[in-house]
Amino acid sequence: MTKRTAEPEVTQDRRLRIVEVAAEFFAQTSIGTTTVREIGEAAGILSGSLYHYFPSKDAIVEEIMVSFLDELAKRYDEVLGKKGDAIEQFRGLVHASLECTSTHLHAAEIYQNDVNYIANSPRLAPIQALANNVRTAWMSVLDAGVASGSFRSDVPTWLVYHLLRDSIWLTVRWFKSSEQYGYHALAEDCCKVFLRGFVAPGVDLTYLYGDE
Amino acid sequence: MTKRTAEPEVTQDRRLRIVEVAAEFFAQTSIGTTTVREIGEAAGILSGSLYHYFPSKDAIVEEIMVSFLDELAKRYDEVLGKKGDAIEQFRGLVHASLECTSTHLHAAEIYQNDVNYIANSPRLAPIQALANNVRTAWMSVLDAGVASGSFRSDVPTWLVYHLLRDSIWLTVRWFKSSEQYGYHALAEDCCKVFLRGFVAPGVDLTYLYGDE
Repeated sequence: MTKRTAEPEVTQDRRLRIVEVAAEFFAQTSIGTTTVREIGEAAGILSGSLYHYFPSKDAIVEEIMVSFLDELAKRYDEVLGKKGDAIEQFRGLVHASLECTSTHLHAAEIYQNDVNYIANSPRLAPIQALANNVRTAWMSVLDAGVASGSFRSDVPTWLVYHLLRDSIWLTVRWFKSSEQYGYHALAEDCCKVFLRGFVAPGVDLTYLYGDE
Repeated sequence: MTKRTAEPEVTQDRRLRIVEVAAEFFAQTSIGTTTVREIGEAAGILSGSLYHYFPSKDAIVEEIMVSFLDELAKRYDEVLGKKGDAIEQFRGLVHASLECTSTHLHAAEIYQNDVNYIANSPRLAPIQALANNVRTAWMSVLDAGVASGSFRSDVPTWLVYHLLRDSIWLTVRWFKSSEQYGYHALAEDCCKVFLRGFVAPGVDLTYLYGDE
């Protein structure tokens, strides 16, 4: 009802403002300890009115997370859609992950810090499903690389996936991008460590990284 | 006062029971959303009496974390006290970290999930200091390895430290130890990936891992 009577632009601006303010609260403290009243006050909206925009706190969480994971899925699809061997696709996924993190810092942080909250909320079940797609993309590249002889077979791919995933997503907790060392450099160095650690014996990476 | 009148053994049992119950709550949800009342009820102690054992919720958190980080520090000291090259010490720290995680699962999980809560609580400042010792131990091994030519110099050691740290500590979120694949195997495979990824060109790891 409110959406129909309110001026569309104002409604859109307010929604956006609510989402931005809430993301900051969630990232700085946690979803569980942030109240709808706090979000409303910081966004300059009475918490009663806030419910016209979002039926619950979890609906705001959902909007933040889905926006992040949808963009990630789009970027992963682009990487997997390009021709290229497993090493190229591996590099593509690392770069896509860190680029997407850099534009969704709060969402990436909330996702890492509030795993329990997200897992325990029925409203947020679709987020788990989107996150499973991330795993599927990674596993397809790692397994294809083992099958083609690019990657080693003496370490389980599920372990490499977990180590990589946690290393890469947790950068959001500590990495401060600078002109000297930004997200692109970070992605390149992550690839260096993990590719060198996982390529099969005899696979030469000097074409990418030189002699040392 | 209570401590003086209560029977010592009962007091000790109750303290332990409170800590165990609280650790489970914190790990399964979060510190911020767990109430002293909930902890008291689950431990079979009125929340008023609980304050005789711990002055605040954060005092319980402190006890859980300090116990974990103290044991970790002891194990790291043992590793660093032994003679051995950087590769051996690297392996020692990975094994020590995962062994210590396996006996402090809740603490390790709380530490990862509640970074914001811990950072924002003045009472918990000593935990940050203990955590800094972990970083110092790791950086000394990584830097010594670069200096001695065991490790590469084209990736910053602080980055390798962060990737390793996050990969290893986050295992607590997903790893389920089994008879077929336990913490020792996990530590070995983590070492494989990261050592292969970080040893200098020409450093041969086949004495550890064979030809593949």
